[in-house]
Amino acid sequence: MTRSQIRDSAGVALYRHEAIGAVLQVRGEGVDARLCVLTAVRRSAPFAGVPALPSGPVEPGETLEESVLRHLAAKVDVAGLAHLEQLGTSSDPSRDPAQRTIGTSYLGLVSAGEEPELPDNAAWVPVDGVPEMAFDHRVVVEHAVRRLRAKLSYTNVGFALMPAEFTIAELRSVYVAALGHDVAPTNLQRVLTRRGQLESTGEMTSPGAKGGRPARVFRFVDRELVVTDPFAVLRPE
Amino acid sequence: MTRSQIRDSAGVALYRHEAIGAVLQVRGEGVDARLCVLTAVRRSAPFAGVPALPSGPVEPGETLEESVLRHLAAKVDVAGLAHLEQLGTSSDPSRDPAQRTIGTSYLGLVSAGEEPELPDNAAWVPVDGVPEMAFDHRVVVEHAVRRLRAKLSYTNVGFALMPAEFTIAELRSVYVAALGHDVAPTNLQRVLTRRGQLESTGEMTSPGAKGGRPARVFRFVDRELVVTDPFAVLRPE
Repeated sequence: MTRSQIRDSAGVALYRHEAIGAVLQVRGEGVDARLCVLTAVRRSAPFAGVPALPSGPVEPGETLEESVLRHLAAKVDVAGLAHLEQLGTSSDPSRDPAQRTIGTSYLGLVSAGEEPELPDNAAWVPVDGVPEMAFDHRVVVEHAVRRLRAKLSYTNVGFALMPAEFTIAELRSVYVAALGHDVAPTNLQRVLTRRGQLESTGEMTSPGAKGGRPARVFRFVDRELVVTDPFAVLRPE
Repeated sequence: MTRSQIRDSAGVALYRHEAIGAVLQVRGEGVDARLCVLTAVRRSAPFAGVPALPSGPVEPGETLEESVLRHLAAKVDVAGLAHLEQLGTSSDPSRDPAQRTIGTSYLGLVSAGEEPELPDNAAWVPVDGVPEMAFDHRVVVEHAVRRLRAKLSYTNVGFALMPAEFTIAELRSVYVAALGHDVAPTNLQRVLTRRGQLESTGEMTSPGAKGGRPARVFRFVDRELVVTDPFAVLRPE
């Protein structure tokens, strides 16, 4: 593929740069909970009619983070994003069949139970059943899921998947969906409490509110990202 | 600052994109060991005469990783890089005073004891005494150090800091320099062995080779990156 290369007056090559948002949310309750990603069917070429992640070009005055928030805002209420972080930058010269475009992707998280209004062409899709997607967006989804799973291990990022208050049964359902494997509720409660992430509100759910016995209500101690550093073993003693 | 914005025929804004390499190595022995970063004094504007990380523009046919390796090769023997990974992408519109340039940075690691030949303008500088640097390169160095320290906790990346074979005293000296705090040698040996990273070669050092008693010789089990996942607590039981 030969393309004419645009250079500036100093002879330096110039490229399109786009911001890509992989927004994840655990949707559904109990055993039906699934980790999902927000997709939108593309309306124009290339890949018209194919699902893609919200994305688009960086404008001159904006940073990549501002750019991804702007492109996400066209699909979803970004005020509802509980967390946003950069994933990485893809630079395969042929990743965009039209023009060379360098793409920087972000992981966004929406808390369970939020139901942001979506445009007609947007939908939440379970991450273990992602269809063919435009560009390398399927690889970005895999990266986002891998990053989320890793950070659930060594940070308190679970706060961003959960509503402000929840029961241990609700916490477990979200973690099982996000991690992709079963987790014992007592174990989950013990581990997150030991790491200082989880605390009881002192309240109980109303009997029958969720059809069951009253249950203790919990919250995350922090609602911003903290590395809960488990490697105190290598710290000064 | 107003700049004329170059756009392609479809009206999409175009940018310079550069690759930046933060190459770290633990240099010096015993208590003199220091975590250092490779810097090179810039020969041209902007920031002529100021130390910078090896960096430069991405060329049309290359990926970012190929680009950073090409720019690093001008300063250091890249065959000696034991590990290379992407750190992140900086997009502050004013990070380059000359032209808007989006920059993707990489962490490279050179094993202790390697002594790559450097050009006249290049030098290893301890990371805790980094001088003022060109652009946002000091922030990149901080990012590189933070990433290395985090990964020493949950991966086997220490292999890339060490020669093929070493004693526990040598291992400790490198870890103390890399982590920036003291580590007990027995604790370090126990933790890395328990995580399956470290094994004895069955050999001993020659008496007097390093001026001391013969010591057991160790190596890393793997010499490529493995996540040694300490979070089996949240795994299926």
